Formats: sequence, structure tokens, C-alpha cells
Amino acid sequence: MSPDFDVTILGNTSSIPVHGRNHTAQIVRFGQFCLLLDCGEGMQIQARKYKIKVARISHIFISHLHGDHYLGLVGLLSSYNLSKRTKALTIFGPKGLDEIITTHFRWSDTKLGYPITFVQTDSKNMNLLVDEKLFQVYSFPLQHRIPTTGFLIREKYGLRSLIKEKIEGKELSIAAIKSLRAGIDYYSQEGEIFKVKEFTYPLPPLRAYAFCSDTKFDPGLKEYISKVDLLYHESTFLEQDRDRAELTFHSTAKEAGQIAKLCGVKKLLLGHFSSRYANLDPMLAEAEIEFKPIEISEEGQTYQI
Amino acid sequence: MSPDFDVTILGNTSSIPVHGRNHTAQIVRFGQFCLLLDCGEGMQIQARKYKIKVARISHIFISHLHGDHYLGLVGLLSSYNLSKRTKALTIFGPKGLDEIITTHFRWSDTKLGYPITFVQTDSKNMNLLVDEKLFQVYSFPLQHRIPTTGFLIREKYGLRSLIKEKIEGKELSIAAIKSLRAGIDYYSQEGEIFKVKEFTYPLPPLRAYAFCSDTKFDPGLKEYISKVDLLYHESTFLEQDRDRAELTFHSTAKEAGQIAKLCGVKKLLLGHFSSRYANLDPMLAEAEIEFKPIEISEEGQTYQI
Repeated sequence: MSPDFDVTILGNTSSIPVHGRNHTAQIVRFGQFCLLLDCGEGMQIQARKYKIKVARISHIFISHLHGDHYLGLVGLLSSYNLSKRTKALTIFGPKGLDEIITTHFRWSDTKLGYPITFVQTDSKNMNLLVDEKLFQVYSFPLQHRIPTTGFLIREKYGLRSLIKEKIEGKELSIAAIKSLRAGIDYYSQEGEIFKVKEFTYPLPPLRAYAFCSDTKFDPGLKEYISKVDLLYHESTFLEQDRDRAELTFHSTAKEAGQIAKLCGVKKLLLGHFSSRYANLDPMLAEAEIEFKPIEISEEGQTYQI
Repeated sequence: MSPDFDVTILGNTSSIPVHGRNHTAQIVRFGQFCLLLDCGEGMQIQARKYKIKVARISHIFISHLHGDHYLGLVGLLSSYNLSKRTKALTIFGPKGLDEIITTHFRWSDTKLGYPITFVQTDSKNMNLLVDEKLFQVYSFPLQHRIPTTGFLIREKYGLRSLIKEKIEGKELSIAAIKSLRAGIDYYSQEGEIFKVKEFTYPLPPLRAYAFCSDTKFDPGLKEYISKVDLLYHESTFLEQDRDRAELTFHSTAKEAGQIAKLCGVKKLLLGHFSSRYANLDPMLAEAEIEFKPIEISEEGQTYQI
């Protein structure tokens, strides 16, 4: 069985937090792992509202240093300290994030009781950030006003499952089982051949999620996020405000749809809506001319990947 | 008629934001003025919930640099920029707050479109920070783990109101009216005496509000906040957790009651409750043994001063 792999949206708004919408933060769950993508102000309150256990987060990824994407981070790190966290935490983010964090804790005279590893992201190239047994996380360049990266979470092949009916009656050695589960045909000392195809179920297709927080329209994304199962792409403006989108290095709903189509993704999730739009139906209508299926991200909703 | 003078609580919790409670932030309204005392994370969302217009805020006062008292500030300043604020803003806070703010805006490459004056507070002495026509704001020392000040907002005498029935039929010169309203008896060139007592209503008593954000039990507060109409005093712990209060330089509910009694205040408002207490009734019970009247501060509630 494949591990659970989903994303829960804690915030889907840009700029000023209005219309009951909050700044960007997402929880990606992969099996037992819990990853946080961006950490806008109020993330802790949102997490509690939607029954996310923040203590489980092991890796935090910050796309860029505009406040609506990270101003909840110092508060979260402080809360970890108050709740006596000891588990290590790794934070990936642009140059400057470490200075911001250490400046806060220097002035509040805080000594954290758990280890933080800070890894500086690179907004020029795609880079492998995390390589776990069953998934990897990459950063890739986004085109915004300041250095910005997206994040790609990609499933890796794990061990195959044995077909019970086939192995019953066979006395398979531990070495044989290990080999078959790893996808390698096994030759016993007695000359018997155990074929992976015969004794194991086929592997499920690999799943992938791409997070494009803030970016102008960029066809170059195809190189990084082609054919992902779920693409979260910012959709700050409608075409009617295209001049504003260009000025601020953001995308329109139409452009988000075009990127989804160009990259051949399975499904598009729109977010990072400007506070100027109370009603988001026109976002969906505009993007669906370019691509389907699309969902307007909703806070508190979990999307399967 | 006296100007409106009240305080609206936007957050009343310390440490981890749980039980639906938020970090410290308060709006003090004095006539047309709108002052913000502390600015915990999520202040903007809370302000919107309780229909506070943040654009009206002219002065921000930060008591100290523990995250639960200021982590909403950079987000608020960013929102002002996005909403094209041009009105000047004055921020009072401890050394370091300016470095924190400028570090954020340096990395986000933000140029603010409105002027900010930063005034560094002094946690050793009482100081006059704001001297407006009808009120003053002072900072005064609190005893906490890092440099911390409380704030005192004190009404000043304004102009007296003339008693209509008394002045009817008298031909009072502008000079006479000015003099009487300023509280000075007026002697006309014709030798007539116009007594302030006779021609104007008595001045209403002066009102004052004191905000003690984070402090250990400190009888020295009497020097600064004696006889205020409303005292907001932190009440982080119950007596049963006195060891924790002492270790962290916080007060118990009982101690807050003792301070109110010692300072001869008219009313006590408790706040800054630890996340360990879901039910706050015992706070009230414990403090009321020492002093009455007391209210447990509630988010969204406005308290007259």
C-alpha cells in the first residue's frame, strides 16, 4: 500500500489578510512525515483550528522573504521551545532567513532547547533538499521580485509487496524476500529462479506535488514540475488586473491555467488570492478556459496527491 | 463632555496561542486618537474580527521583545504599505525593535511609503512619550527577564464648558471666554469679575489607564500607576504554579490583586494567561481575595476607562 500523501491548506491569501483568509502555509503529509511549506502569520492558530499537530513537523520550507510567507515562523519556533520540543528541525529558506531568526532570538534572549539546521536555498537552480527512503524534496527557481523557490515533493519507489498466494508453499529465504521486494530477480543456490514479476505486485505509479508560491508567468517551470499529480500555483490576480500582476511579478488565474496545461499536470490547485477579490468564482472560470481539472484552494481542506 | 476613553482587548494569552485565545494586543481609544499597545501575532485578523480600523492607529507601543508581544508588528506595517498608507506612524519600543523591523524590510526589499518614527523606550525610569492636548502617554519600568516597560495613558485637563444660562445676556469678549474656558478668572476693563466657578461647569475627574504587560510582583509600581481608573495587569499563573511564575518573572492572579490594592486603583483587568489554564474562573477567585472589582479580560470586549 502506498503511504498517505496529501496537502492541507492553512492559508490561501496574499497581501492583507481579509475575507476570513490567511497568509500562505501548507502541511504536506507523506506517510509519517509532516512538512510545512511556508509559514504565514497566524499559522499556529490555523493549524489548531484544523487539528494539525505542529509538533510532528520535521522540515520547514520557506519559499521567499515576503512577510506573508514567513511571518508566523518565529512564533512557531518560540512555541516549540515553550512546549519543550527536543526533536531536531530543519529549515530550508533563502539567504537572510537565518539572520532574521537569530536577530529575533538574540533580542528576546532565547536559547532554543532543540537543534535547528538551517539550509540556504538557491533560487538559480533545481536542488535536492531532502532524500528520504520514500520521498524527495527539491527546490526550483521561481521568477519573483526577490529570490524565490518553489518546492517539489516527489515519491520514490519503496519495497514491493509479495503476492501471498504465490509464495505459499515455497520456502523463500530472507535473502530471496529482500531481493524480490527490492525488485531484483532472485537465483537460489539450487538454481531456482524467482522472478520479481511473478512474486510481487506491480509498483504503484509515483506521485508528485509542486508548490509555486509567488511567481510571474514562467514557461520555464516545465523543466522542473512536468506531469506532477497536483500543482499548487499562485493566482494572485484576474486578467482584468494584468498590469498589476506584471508590476508585482505575480500570475493571473489564466496564466496559472496555462502553466498547468504546459506542464501536463494532473490537477491544478489555485491560491494566493489578492485581498481585492472577495468572490473567487471568477478565478476558477478564467483558469478553466485553459485547463481542467482545477480547484480553488480552501483553508482547512486536504487534497490527495 | 469628556472624550471617549476606552480599551479593546484583541489578545489576552501568553506563550502558546490556545483555547481560542490570542497573543497580547490592545487598542486604546482616546477621542479621535487610536493607540496600539503591543502587537502579538494575528493582531490584524483580531482587529478585523472586532471591527477595529487599523488605519486609524497613530502610535504603537511595544512593551518588550518577547515574541508574543510584537510578532504581529511587521505584518501590520506591511499591510499599511499595501493599503497605501501615507499617514506618519510613531513606534515606541525597546532597543532592538528597530533592528528587527529593518532586518525584515531589508530582506524583503520593501520601501515603506509612509514615515515611521522609532522612539527607543527606557526600562529604568518613567518617561513621557506622548504629550497631546488632552492626554499623555508615559512608559514606566516593569521587572521582567528582558528590558520591559508598561504604559500609562493619562487624561489632561482640557477646556472648561461654559454654563449657557449664566452667560446669556452677558456680552462676554473672546478674551473673557478663552480665559474662563482655560480656568482663569477674567477681569474686564470695566472692572467686572467673571469667576470660573460661576460661569463654567466643574472639570470632570481625570482618567488614567495603566498597562502592565509582563512583570513579576513589584510593589514599586505604586510610584507610577497609583490610583489609575483601570489597571491591566498580567496574571500569567495561579498560586499553585508560583514556582513557575518566579522562574519566568511573571505574576500570579493573587499578586495582580495585591498590586491593584497597593496602588489603590479603581478596577483591575486580568490578562496574559498561560496556555496551561483552559478555565479562567480560578484566576478571578484567587485575585478577588485581595481586591475588587476585577474582570477577566475577554478578547473583543471594550472596557471604559
